[in-house]
Amino acid sequence: MQQRLRMGMVGGGEGAFIGEVHRMAAALDGQFDLVCGAFSRDSGNNQRTAARLGVRPARTYASWQQLLDAELKLPAGERMQLLVIVTPNQLHVPIALAASTAGFAVFSEKPAGVSLAQTQQLASQLQQQPALYGLAHTYLGYPMVWQAKHLVNSGALGTLRKIYVEYPQGWLTEAIEQQAQKQASWRTDPQQAGSSGCMADIGTHAFGLAEFISGQHITRLLARLHSHIDGRQLDDDGAAFFDTEAGASGVLMASQICAGEENALKIRLYGDKAGLEWQQMSPNTLWFKPHGAPAQYLRAGRGNPELCSEASSRCRLPAGHPEGYLEAMANLYLDFARTLRASSPDNIPSSDVAGVPGIHAALRGMAFIEAMVHSNQTGQWQAVTV
Amino acid sequence: MQQRLRMGMVGGGEGAFIGEVHRMAAALDGQFDLVCGAFSRDSGNNQRTAARLGVRPARTYASWQQLLDAELKLPAGERMQLLVIVTPNQLHVPIALAASTAGFAVFSEKPAGVSLAQTQQLASQLQQQPALYGLAHTYLGYPMVWQAKHLVNSGALGTLRKIYVEYPQGWLTEAIEQQAQKQASWRTDPQQAGSSGCMADIGTHAFGLAEFISGQHITRLLARLHSHIDGRQLDDDGAAFFDTEAGASGVLMASQICAGEENALKIRLYGDKAGLEWQQMSPNTLWFKPHGAPAQYLRAGRGNPELCSEASSRCRLPAGHPEGYLEAMANLYLDFARTLRASSPDNIPSSDVAGVPGIHAALRGMAFIEAMVHSNQTGQWQAVTV
Amino acid sequence: MQQRLRMGMVGGGEGAFIGEVHRMAAALDGQFDLVCGAFSRDSGNNQRTAARLGVRPARTYASWQQLLDAELKLPAGERMQLLVIVTPNQLHVPIALAASTAGFAVFSEKPAGVSLAQTQQLASQLQQQPALYGLAHTYLGYPMVWQAKHLVNSGALGTLRKIYVEYPQGWLTEAIEQQAQKQASWRTDPQQAGSSGCMADIGTHAFGLAEFISGQHITRLLARLHSHIDGRQLDDDGAAFFDTEAGASGVLMASQICAGEENALKIRLYGDKAGLEWQQMSPNTLWFKPHGAPAQYLRAGRGNPELCSEASSRCRLPAGHPEGYLEAMANLYLDFARTLRASSPDNIPSSDVAGVPGIHAALRGMAFIEAMVHSNQTGQWQAVTV
Amino acid sequence: MQQRLRMGMVGGGEGAFIGEVHRMAAALDGQFDLVCGAFSRDSGNNQRTAARLGVRPARTYASWQQLLDAELKLPAGERMQLLVIVTPNQLHVPIALAASTAGFAVFSEKPAGVSLAQTQQLASQLQQQPALYGLAHTYLGYPMVWQAKHLVNSGALGTLRKIYVEYPQGWLTEAIEQQAQKQASWRTDPQQAGSSGCMADIGTHAFGLAEFISGQHITRLLARLHSHIDGRQLDDDGAAFFDTEAGASGVLMASQICAGEENALKIRLYGDKAGLEWQQMSPNTLWFKPHGAPAQYLRAGRGNPELCSEASSRCRLPAGHPEGYLEAMANLYLDFARTLRASSPDNIPSSDVAGVPGIHAALRGMAFIEAMVHSNQTGQWQAVTV
Repeated sequence: MQQRLRMGMVGGGEGAFIGEVHRMAAALDGQFDLVCGAFSRDSGNNQRTAARLGVRPARTYASWQQLLDAELKLPAGERMQLLVIVTPNQLHVPIALAASTAGFAVFSEKPAGVSLAQTQQLASQLQQQPALYGLAHTYLGYPMVWQAKHLVNSGALGTLRKIYVEYPQGWLTEAIEQQAQKQASWRTDPQQAGSSGCMADIGTHAFGLAEFISGQHITRLLARLHSHIDGRQLDDDGAAFFDTEAGASGVLMASQICAGEENALKIRLYGDKAGLEWQQMSPNTLWFKPHGAPAQYLRAGRGNPELCSEASSRCRLPAGHPEGYLEAMANLYLDFARTLRASSPDNIPSSDVAGVPGIHAALRGMAFIEAMVHSNQTGQWQAVTV
Repeated sequence: MQQRLRMGMVGGGEGAFIGEVHRMAAALDGQFDLVCGAFSRDSGNNQRTAARLGVRPARTYASWQQLLDAELKLPAGERMQLLVIVTPNQLHVPIALAASTAGFAVFSEKPAGVSLAQTQQLASQLQQQPALYGLAHTYLGYPMVWQAKHLVNSGALGTLRKIYVEYPQGWLTEAIEQQAQKQASWRTDPQQAGSSGCMADIGTHAFGLAEFISGQHITRLLARLHSHIDGRQLDDDGAAFFDTEAGASGVLMASQICAGEENALKIRLYGDKAGLEWQQMSPNTLWFKPHGAPAQYLRAGRGNPELCSEASSRCRLPAGHPEGYLEAMANLYLDFARTLRASSPDNIPSSDVAGVPGIHAALRGMAFIEAMVHSNQTGQWQAVTV
Repeated sequence: MQQRLRMGMVGGGEGAFIGEVHRMAAALDGQFDLVCGAFSRDSGNNQRTAARLGVRPARTYASWQQLLDAELKLPAGERMQLLVIVTPNQLHVPIALAASTAGFAVFSEKPAGVSLAQTQQLASQLQQQPALYGLAHTYLGYPMVWQAKHLVNSGALGTLRKIYVEYPQGWLTEAIEQQAQKQASWRTDPQQAGSSGCMADIGTHAFGLAEFISGQHITRLLARLHSHIDGRQLDDDGAAFFDTEAGASGVLMASQICAGEENALKIRLYGDKAGLEWQQMSPNTLWFKPHGAPAQYLRAGRGNPELCSEASSRCRLPAGHPEGYLEAMANLYLDFARTLRASSPDNIPSSDVAGVPGIHAALRGMAFIEAMVHSNQTGQWQAVTV
Repeated sequence: MQQRLRMGMVGGGEGAFIGEVHRMAAALDGQFDLVCGAFSRDSGNNQRTAARLGVRPARTYASWQQLLDAELKLPAGERMQLLVIVTPNQLHVPIALAASTAGFAVFSEKPAGVSLAQTQQLASQLQQQPALYGLAHTYLGYPMVWQAKHLVNSGALGTLRKIYVEYPQGWLTEAIEQQAQKQASWRTDPQQAGSSGCMADIGTHAFGLAEFISGQHITRLLARLHSHIDGRQLDDDGAAFFDTEAGASGVLMASQICAGEENALKIRLYGDKAGLEWQQMSPNTLWFKPHGAPAQYLRAGRGNPELCSEASSRCRLPAGHPEGYLEAMANLYLDFARTLRASSPDNIPSSDVAGVPGIHAALRGMAFIEAMVHSNQTGQWQAVTV
């Protein structure tokens, strides 16, 4: 009989957003049990969260350090197998570093850290001592994102020329960080978020999506960042021109002050034969637009014959039964589960989990953030290298 | 520490569709553990399914009768608390009847049974001996369906005049039941599906949605049913005119032979002040169309101030993070969990689970199916009474 | 040098709607000059309208009878060549009859008349003495309607099974005919509109569109009509089941009390191979939905290689430059111009103008209206025969 | 009796695109007669075009110089009143200069010329000797563009922060200029098009739309231009960051190599209270998105109470009867007609036609093109000044 994998979590107490999302996504396919956590530095919050989630008091820890120490001492058959990191950014790398050094698989929220240098430390450690590491680029769990990647990769677009990727949100239109809104507070605080606000929070999604679907590195960029609220120290909006390694060019836009917008991540790619378009808010549809022929409306759905295997295997339901954000993240957890079940302490194939963005994507994302910030300061093109 | 509720399942073995959907939906919010099941009459299928799902061999039963017998003998603290019925239609009532008689809460797939008379037996039993009973009208778990109901109920549409509800699918365009497609086979077999195919399978959804949002009973209808494949004994398509108790009229359409359609359930309601429109395949949007003023695009999303509490409490994520079909069904499970936790053998408030369609909706649905079949045979208007 | 064709008009004075539409549509392609008219029985209105339109006083007539008499006396090279009838319904046939008897080509607003019997008189006259006659089913001028017809006719849908056609409007939600709204007043007045309101005004469009695209006659129907305002004598809403000559069935809906709806004519057809969908409010798009393959988004546009010649010849602009309602009607005028230029008094090929709905469509439309009214009264299926 | 205004045309012979568009637009509302023209330097083409359009041989001229000379000699009551210039770019200013010097009103295609300096000559002339001058920014004739301007101007968006304007087309995806496609040939030829291809052709539309709706000048920009075909000398794609005079920033994108795209001009503006969005391919809809409240779906339509007078006066038809590109251009002709009728040789109010982009917009557009080209060459921010 198949047993569930044992998952722990740092962060995700009351008032947090993404921790609960991870818990639902991990639960959906019945592969994981949440067995331990350090949900909040506030003891009451930590304990209430644990109780609500059915985590036993003995495995509810006051700090992530305690969590790692105590779990390590447990027998292998009880010990946490995957640590999910859903803290503010400044803790991502320290926890991931300690956890992977201790031999735990890690699934970290993005961005990977608060600096490229810091993230490179993690990369070095993973190289020296392989441990599974994944980065929660949820949007890369959507089936039609894989179908898009497949179409580009299969040559259906011809030679890639242009990439437009945009991510407008409106939730920071007003100065809600000054009204104790928890999400806004830490995301606009350089101590917790790092050197960028909007680009670290959502620009990295746009960047990662562009590199993932195109299969190309963005080699350099020219950026402009803005901040629209008095006293807001980090960017809440910005854009960049960019070039890719194979000669395509593009425009990236990300903003949190587009009043009235929800979460409108969208990507378009154009080659010399066809274009394609995908929008996160209608995630089950992918437009394929051949030059000189009618556009096709490709649809997610279990068993849809038009889909590649990477896309169809990420669908749970027949076409017309909408799947969404949680299912996308759950696909990353399924990939983790598959790799974890195939791994053993003696057999960790590499630091990568097939299907899940790993340390390379983590470094790329940090290089992007730093290039954006630097280019904005200098007004010059900046290489995106790791 | 909160413990998970213990759930059992009849049906849902390999090759089935909706059983897996229930398992994912029940898992999503961490309220239920699947502890026992009789997944298939095929022993190998049954055991493989159980193993894959982590159900212990001791609680993997060869039949639903065995399941009920054995679970009853377990201590109250171990015993299954909710039985999910995901078999073909002809078993819905027999199992529900036995299970509720034995004191188990029941969550049954729709339609409630294969005849109104049969379903009335269940209703009588539930009246004599209260037990929780819910019917899996998944679409009634969508937040924006609740918002639609709220708008009608609050008078925003004025006096209701028209209801158009339609449910086109295309999956039975070809004679796939003759190619051993399991879903198609039983749904087109009168022995397993009852007296109707399309109307029992999806017409009931359309009907239930119309009565739910409007808050009105459909009192009578005039129907036409069709079957488009040689040898297909049950309807695969049909439509009806109908009247409601408060004087509105409408048209209902459901079809499984609309080539190229996925699962396009849609409802429109019009009053003397405004109209509204909701589509299942874009479930997070509700159009509100006041007469003489711009249409409004209402959106699902945790914390959206424009939503009523019934709608916003059914959202897990902020606007722009799509939720779908599984989340809708999971909302029904959350309602079940809430009621189960508040109940005890001495305190079963009634047979209804707040938020979940119950025995009344079950009877209404069966009356609808029979009225459709009868009206089609006679060519006359038929009352829809229970 | 090509000269413009000479057009006259009855109706279309101040306060009218459709007359101005005809004038713009006729002007668009530079084929017609408006040379004479009897725009209103109100003398001042008549003269002001003429002056505004540049129609000379000598050819501004007090009545349609005077117009016919006077124009007949003009030399052939000056005389009106096409008479456009944009009066309320009760005058359509009398004027068309007199004009065609006098040898004028006629382009009449729909419905053709106020009764089938009356329209049959006109048909007899046209048979005895050929004259060009066209009916202004504007929607049949849209390119993508022709593309839809082409797809059905070419077998792309396989054997046709279902037709759903609907036409919801909201403009008669309130009793505006009691507030002297001119359009509403005559359309709800049996003396001017005939035996039906909504079905005569827009139901005929839905019916005509279904017969046009399917290439099949609707042989019988079962209808329900409603009127939602106290004192409103004619139907403002209704629906019908129907059968076609080749064995398809369908549902037609038309309403003028769907609050918040504009002019949402929409048709869907399904065969055993594919479906298609067209919406008047997005007229440049046609969805083609093959069973088991991605839907295609066909687009209007001059030179689009995917279009049949009937569709592409009705586009003036490249794809992406929206054409609309006026262009659709202008396409009917272009067809008229082509036929008029190829005709002479000695060479009137028949009463039909290629591309324009003619007397047969006129009779079909009247038969539809009467069948709807009769079926509603009797509650029985009614044949639609001419 | 109102007489038609007399219009002449330079360019627009067989094989041209935009000339025919102007003729249809000018004809639509019955305000103009085309009385003379120099349609092509090819004599056969010129005469065939004239014959087809009903322009008399005596007023069909071999060159624009002959046209001006000959028309000037005609009596005032016969003479052309408006000259429409639809030649390749390099002739726009020379013809406009000569025509306005001769006292004719001019309606010129965009861009205004091939350089800012050249266009400034025209501006000087118009200042010294007022004559009516309009620039055919067709998109500024759409009703909902005026509604957008009204919303910004009325403060509904609050303080403007961001403008995103984009214009992707795909028609130059392949090297069709090397296949004698007439439109492509001159637009990619520096001798005829000037220093820019894509930016002069469609970038100016995007720029003009942004300045028009925002009511703000774009003060500076940083551009990147590309050319994707071997041997193509001018840009076929590009983007820019920009700032406005009142402190907003934005991104502009225009491309002709986005395979599969038609003519997808789109603009979004965001203030600190609301956002709005308009798309040329769905021109009758304007999204208004207040922060924290449901988005509103504003619709074009004669008499729609939600529209400002500038928008509603530009609608011919009730909502739901689509108007398109030709109607938008026809709105510019209506504005010209209104001004021409109110003018006389002794009373030319200024060089501007109310409602039509004039010499100021012409200069702005040329400054934009030159700034784009210059910024692309230098890699530096460039001022957009006239």
